[in-house]
Amino acid sequence: MKNQQILLAARPTGAVEERHFKLVEAEVPRAKDGEFVLRAHYLSLDPYMRGRMDDAKSYAPKAELNEVMVGAVVGEVIESRNDKFQVGDFVQARSGWQEYGVSDGSGVRRADPKFVPLSAYLGAVGMPGVTAWVGLNEHGKPKAGETVVVSAASGAVGSAVGQLAKLKGCRAVGIAGGKAKCDYVVNELGFDACIDYKAGGLNAALKAACPKGVDIYFDNVGGNVLNTVLDHMNAFSRVPLCGQISGYNDVSKLVISNMRSFLVNRIALRGFIVSDHMDLWRPALAELSQLVHDGKLKYRESVVQGLENAPKALIGLLRGENFGKQLVKLV
Amino acid sequence: MKNQQILLAARPTGAVEERHFKLVEAEVPRAKDGEFVLRAHYLSLDPYMRGRMDDAKSYAPKAELNEVMVGAVVGEVIESRNDKFQVGDFVQARSGWQEYGVSDGSGVRRADPKFVPLSAYLGAVGMPGVTAWVGLNEHGKPKAGETVVVSAASGAVGSAVGQLAKLKGCRAVGIAGGKAKCDYVVNELGFDACIDYKAGGLNAALKAACPKGVDIYFDNVGGNVLNTVLDHMNAFSRVPLCGQISGYNDVSKLVISNMRSFLVNRIALRGFIVSDHMDLWRPALAELSQLVHDGKLKYRESVVQGLENAPKALIGLLRGENFGKQLVKLV
Repeated sequence: MKNQQILLAARPTGAVEERHFKLVEAEVPRAKDGEFVLRAHYLSLDPYMRGRMDDAKSYAPKAELNEVMVGAVVGEVIESRNDKFQVGDFVQARSGWQEYGVSDGSGVRRADPKFVPLSAYLGAVGMPGVTAWVGLNEHGKPKAGETVVVSAASGAVGSAVGQLAKLKGCRAVGIAGGKAKCDYVVNELGFDACIDYKAGGLNAALKAACPKGVDIYFDNVGGNVLNTVLDHMNAFSRVPLCGQISGYNDVSKLVISNMRSFLVNRIALRGFIVSDHMDLWRPALAELSQLVHDGKLKYRESVVQGLENAPKALIGLLRGENFGKQLVKLV
Repeated sequence: MKNQQILLAARPTGAVEERHFKLVEAEVPRAKDGEFVLRAHYLSLDPYMRGRMDDAKSYAPKAELNEVMVGAVVGEVIESRNDKFQVGDFVQARSGWQEYGVSDGSGVRRADPKFVPLSAYLGAVGMPGVTAWVGLNEHGKPKAGETVVVSAASGAVGSAVGQLAKLKGCRAVGIAGGKAKCDYVVNELGFDACIDYKAGGLNAALKAACPKGVDIYFDNVGGNVLNTVLDHMNAFSRVPLCGQISGYNDVSKLVISNMRSFLVNRIALRGFIVSDHMDLWRPALAELSQLVHDGKLKYRESVVQGLENAPKALIGLLRGENFGKQLVKLV
């Protein structure tokens, strides 16, 4: 029995390629006193990972070269020398891109696959769901009747933002790439409208989809989409800024020319990272898990099988080729 | 006895010129029931006036062509048919670019030239002072030991921002144009440092002046200065955005390329207009007038004599040629 791992082999300048990763085999770790070993069932792939690959100051430590690439998994405890975790427990942990991880329990959250599917703890009932919840509720402060626009609307964060906004009585308008994603966002997730940014005419489409302007723009992408939405913001509107995927490979894509709107419309923009709000995870997860359990918060997953396919899947995610929450199934 | 007035004669595209204004003479108005007539002693010139000259959506109605140009004055009541205002009372009113105005009292605030100089009610104890107070306290939320940077630091708003920040125990760093203004900001106003943005090397100068980074950037100018300061913001820093004078003639100057900083540093940026916060004027003015009275809040004025010189003075203000609060003395 071996432990497949993927290491960060080189730092990309620009787009990520498969050669930036390296698949290796190591021994399966053993638990020391106070630790447990988990077998990962799913690895989560997320846009933030691009930032960890850079050698730049950011809000979290970078991934180290020739170390296991960082990431969150859900899995099962298979050996334990920690009183709080028993063999057979399901957990969510940040053990990275490998099949087996060891943990002392810090930062680990329990998962209950009898209540919601195990993989949901990496999506709607995990970091992406809490990101949606925190950004919308804490920074967006939606009021019934307001219009909420969200980019990357079919993704793990965006799909939750729009559905939570609908539950608050808001008009939810998505922005996504391609007709299939837009159809899904409206027909399956229940958004009021979804705009295909690849179809051109974003400005006119926003005007049509948001007849009363935009009160909250939950931004996952930055760049030209943000710049265009700024033209439609209402007075005293809010922009929770959670991602800038359009510029992860090339920051020059993030230029904003519509700064005048911030002053004219007294816009409050706030960059936020969900890990700054650990106090909110408990209430957020309680609500999100209940909503998923009750079928009121839907999500879609893109699952690839096998750790060796994780690099290709991350590259696709960063190009917007995934459709819903991107996962790697390891078991 | 005639009433000199200046009308908005044409809307500028780009820089303001004297031909955009027209000096006319009208009859001195008489008070109807419930009204009073005031004689203006000082007219205030402010950067926001550039925005009122445009035919563009903004936070306040535009100035109308061939009407008296909008603006605030301090003056003396010379005739009254309003119970609340007596002949001889001093008031601050928005009667515009003219010697005599008529008012029903709405939006008028009292001035007490025995407590602070009359002209201060247009500056440190008026709209600019309240703008500084609201932006710093409500949006900036300064904590002792933090670093506060403010642009247009020798101006009516910026000079108050830095002095209020010092009173809160912060490090105050100004940005201003030219050595004379910078010397004044440090030596007279007591800022810890002031950077001459015209001297070049803004990035290195900010690094030297803000060894612990920037916690609050109170922005009056936008554009390249904002973009450069964004490189120095700390985690969880705040940007009260109150003006964008660098782009008033040409919005293309307002482009921002440093958007990544908003996410990486979780910056909260908020555009605000002081007239949205009427509930805060009373506490702000109470504090500001006491500070001016006690000599703890200093200011400098640039005064031109005669209404006919107001257009030229506004043009100079928009070019940064004024030094301190720009006023037109009418009496």
